[in-house]
Amino acid sequence: MKILALDSSGLVASAAVVQDGVLTAEYTVNYKITHSQTLLPMLQELKEMIELDLDTIDAIALAAGPGSFTGLRIGSATAKGLGLALDKPLIEVPTLAGLAYHFWGSEKLICPLMDARRNQVYTGIYTFEKEAGKSDYRMCTVKEQCAVDIQEILDELDNMGREVIFLGDGVPVFKSVIEERLKTPFAFAPAHLNRQRAAAVAALAEIYYSEGRTVSAGEHRPEYLRLSQAERERLSQEKG
Amino acid sequence: MKILALDSSGLVASAAVVQDGVLTAEYTVNYKITHSQTLLPMLQELKEMIELDLDTIDAIALAAGPGSFTGLRIGSATAKGLGLALDKPLIEVPTLAGLAYHFWGSEKLICPLMDARRNQVYTGIYTFEKEAGKSDYRMCTVKEQCAVDIQEILDELDNMGREVIFLGDGVPVFKSVIEERLKTPFAFAPAHLNRQRAAAVAALAEIYYSEGRTVSAGEHRPEYLRLSQAERERLSQEKG
Repeated sequence: MKILALDSSGLVASAAVVQDGVLTAEYTVNYKITHSQTLLPMLQELKEMIELDLDTIDAIALAAGPGSFTGLRIGSATAKGLGLALDKPLIEVPTLAGLAYHFWGSEKLICPLMDARRNQVYTGIYTFEKEAGKSDYRMCTVKEQCAVDIQEILDELDNMGREVIFLGDGVPVFKSVIEERLKTPFAFAPAHLNRQRAAAVAALAEIYYSEGRTVSAGEHRPEYLRLSQAERERLSQEKG
Repeated sequence: MKILALDSSGLVASAAVVQDGVLTAEYTVNYKITHSQTLLPMLQELKEMIELDLDTIDAIALAAGPGSFTGLRIGSATAKGLGLALDKPLIEVPTLAGLAYHFWGSEKLICPLMDARRNQVYTGIYTFEKEAGKSDYRMCTVKEQCAVDIQEILDELDNMGREVIFLGDGVPVFKSVIEERLKTPFAFAPAHLNRQRAAAVAALAEIYYSEGRTVSAGEHRPEYLRLSQAERERLSQEKG
């Protein structure tokens, strides 16, 4: 099984190809250039480097949201275009699940934080368990991805009373809040594990694909979790 | 602190830039092309994408061995050339430590396996502990990297009796041996965590750098851990 994965949900743009449980190539950039300038050239670069015939891929996976509205739209548009042109299914990986999957095998609580502005975060809580009689770990969703105030997720983590690993671009924004307020033990993920990676999206997508969890390019919609600022303003005007 | 990291110790070629605990860019290829054709073009590609002025980096980190002799020589030659030209120090990260660092925060035993041919593996045993009073995890070397028979490392792991996570290109080679013989619980790392990544080398190198563990480009030598086939044959002829 060969999966092409894209993640442009945050500041990071990342593309990867995974085949049968091994990463063939990955390219990740976390730089001020917009994803519309990076994502397709990165994909083209990978394609040439590994002599990838796009017709040989089985599916296109993507970090399907939440995240930056523009970033999600660029990722979705790219994945839809590829899916339509190549007649391949899409695999929608929730952005927070893709981030948490960096900590495969950890029995701690994994809490990715993406800055959602206005003191909110996109977050979720995940952990890993072995299935009975199997040697492989499986990710368990303790709390589905959501947009909440930072204090709300910290209270929830304190109630669970287990050790937490934080990662994501929300960490630098809320680090001092966490250090001041959180009572349960915690740690912050280091550089190689603290931002989006398309390889993690692809690895999770391999499991989804084997479970038949695909959509067509036409069916796919990014999951914003919140209204955009323009939509909020229109609604508020209509109410007013 | 800005670190450029290279890993060409195995089949994978990988280059990354990490700045102050955040990955700026990473490019990883695991394909049949030789590292002499991939590593420098990958570095050039990254450099252009993130507009990297090489004079602004603080050090060049590399997976310093063990591994493929040719791969190590290409990585060392590249790092030495950059270090000499830019007058920057090198940071030598043991290859197995760089691999184990994927599992930052895990309290299981992390056992990277690289196929060293002739039924041997390059391996080591690592785990992570929190330092007293600190929230950060630190990697602990339970067994220094070495070249041993696969059975020897499995016996040692069984004696320790703790759960083991295996990763590395030795896993596909020795998977059935492990499944047949190992008594202690174990699991195999998934696609995004089972091969070399320059970002892990860079993240570990940030710690080494802060501890003053650097060498000059002139001082650096790759750590082969074994004699090459040519050297073994010469020695055997000299004895004969």
